[in-house]
Amino acid sequence: MNTIYVVGIGPGQYEKMTIEAAEVLRKSDVIVGYTVYVDLVKEHFPGKQFLTTPMRKEAERCRMAFEEAMKGQTVAMICSGDAGVYGMSGLMYEIGTEYPQVELKLVGGLTAATSGALVLGAPLIHDFAVISLSDLLTPWEKIEKRLSLAAEADFVICLYNPSSKKRKDYLQRACDLVLVHRSPETVCGYVRNIGRDGEEGHVLSLKELRDTQVDMFTTVWIGNSQTKKIGGKMVTPRGYRAEGERQ
Amino acid sequence: MNTIYVVGIGPGQYEKMTIEAAEVLRKSDVIVGYTVYVDLVKEHFPGKQFLTTPMRKEAERCRMAFEEAMKGQTVAMICSGDAGVYGMSGLMYEIGTEYPQVELKLVGGLTAATSGALVLGAPLIHDFAVISLSDLLTPWEKIEKRLSLAAEADFVICLYNPSSKKRKDYLQRACDLVLVHRSPETVCGYVRNIGRDGEEGHVLSLKELRDTQVDMFTTVWIGNSQTKKIGGKMVTPRGYRAEGERQ
Repeated sequence: MNTIYVVGIGPGQYEKMTIEAAEVLRKSDVIVGYTVYVDLVKEHFPGKQFLTTPMRKEAERCRMAFEEAMKGQTVAMICSGDAGVYGMSGLMYEIGTEYPQVELKLVGGLTAATSGALVLGAPLIHDFAVISLSDLLTPWEKIEKRLSLAAEADFVICLYNPSSKKRKDYLQRACDLVLVHRSPETVCGYVRNIGRDGEEGHVLSLKELRDTQVDMFTTVWIGNSQTKKIGGKMVTPRGYRAEGERQ
Repeated sequence: MNTIYVVGIGPGQYEKMTIEAAEVLRKSDVIVGYTVYVDLVKEHFPGKQFLTTPMRKEAERCRMAFEEAMKGQTVAMICSGDAGVYGMSGLMYEIGTEYPQVELKLVGGLTAATSGALVLGAPLIHDFAVISLSDLLTPWEKIEKRLSLAAEADFVICLYNPSSKKRKDYLQRACDLVLVHRSPETVCGYVRNIGRDGEEGHVLSLKELRDTQVDMFTTVWIGNSQTKKIGGKMVTPRGYRAEGERQ
C-alpha cells in the first residue's frame, strides 16, 4: 500500500516540530506543500524532492501528492501548524476517495492557537473557541453568529485569519460583536509571526484591540470575563470558583 | 535569573513530543509533574531528579518547582498535552508573583483536541469549541450554557474530561443539550488513551454517543452540521460553500 504522511510542521522553527514529524520528513522521498511552508523546512531536509503550489491551489496540491504516491514514492504533505486545524487533512480524505490504493497517515503539529498562546502567557487555561475570520468558504453571517454566541458563552476566543488585504475591517467588526457581551477592558492579545523570525506578542484591552490593524500573519486571543494581566502576561484562571483557584 | 520551563509533553509517546521539549528536559536538573506524566517520560531522561505530587495538588506542585528553581536548579514542570490548555502554566504565572526572581519559559505540546483528532480523521478543519465537562472549578450551569450556545453556533465541539466516577451521566447530559440544535445523525467520535498504549478511536452518531459510557481517559468530538464520514473517518469540510470545497 502506498502511503502519504500528512504532517503538521508547527509554527515554523525546526525545534517546534514534533520528533515524529522530523522523522517522517527524513524518511520521505517527496515533500509537498505551499511554497512558504516548504521554504521553512527545506534546509533541514537536504536531498529531498520538493513540490510546491501557491495558495488557493489546495486541491491541485493534494492531487500532486497522490500522484507521487501512486508512483511508489514515500510522500509527505506538509502544513503549517497542525494539518487537522483548518489544514489539508480534510481535503486529503475527500480527494483520497479517488485513490483507494493510497493510505493516509496523519502526524500532528502545534497549531497557532496553542503555539501563539505561549508567547502571550496562558490565555487558554479554560474553555475556548477557535474561529476563522476568512469568509472565502464560509458566509460572513455565519461567522458573525459564531462570534456573538461564543462571546455570550464567555469562551476565550482565538481568531485565525483576522485580516487580509480585502478584509481590513473584519477584526474591528468581530470586536464590536464581542463588545456587546464583554467589557471593553477584557484582556486580549495578538501575536505576529508565531515561531518565526520577527515574532512579536502584544497584550492589550479589547477596546484597544478593536482599533488595532493586524495583518494576515497574526493570530488574536480575546480573554473571557476572568482573564487577567499578570506581569504583562495574559492569564486565564482555571475556573470560576475563587476559593478553588488556589487550593 | 532562575528559570522554570513549563513543558507540554503531548499525549504521552516520546515521538509526539516537540524537539524543543525533549531538548529542554535533557538539559534540566529536576523534572516536576503529576505522577502519571512523570512515569511517561522517565525512561527517556535518565539521571534526572523527578519530583511528583498526586492529582489535585497542583498549587503544591507549582511551589515545589519554584523552590527547586530558587536553589539554582534548572527545573522543568511537565504537563500532558499542552501546559497552556487546561494546564499548569496559568497557575504557574499566578503563584509566580510570589517568586519574582524566577522566570518562566513555556514550551508547547500537542493538546488532546488536536492529537486525538488525528486518530479519528479530520474533525477540526473548521471552527471549533473546546469545553471541559469537569465542574470542579466551574459551575455546571455555566458548562450547560456553553454547550447550548456552542451547539447553536454549529461549532465542532471537543469535550475534555467527559466523565469521572462522580460524573457518570455528564456526557449524556451534554449530548442532550447539543441534540436540541443538531441532528441525532451528526457524526461524532471519541478516543481513549490518545498516544498511549491501548489507544482506540471510534466514529459514531450523536445519538449513539449519547448512550455510550466513556471514562476519564477519553476525549470526545461532536461534528458540526457538515461533518461527514469518509471511509470510516470523521471529516469536517473546510466551509459551507459547496462549490468552493473542491476548487
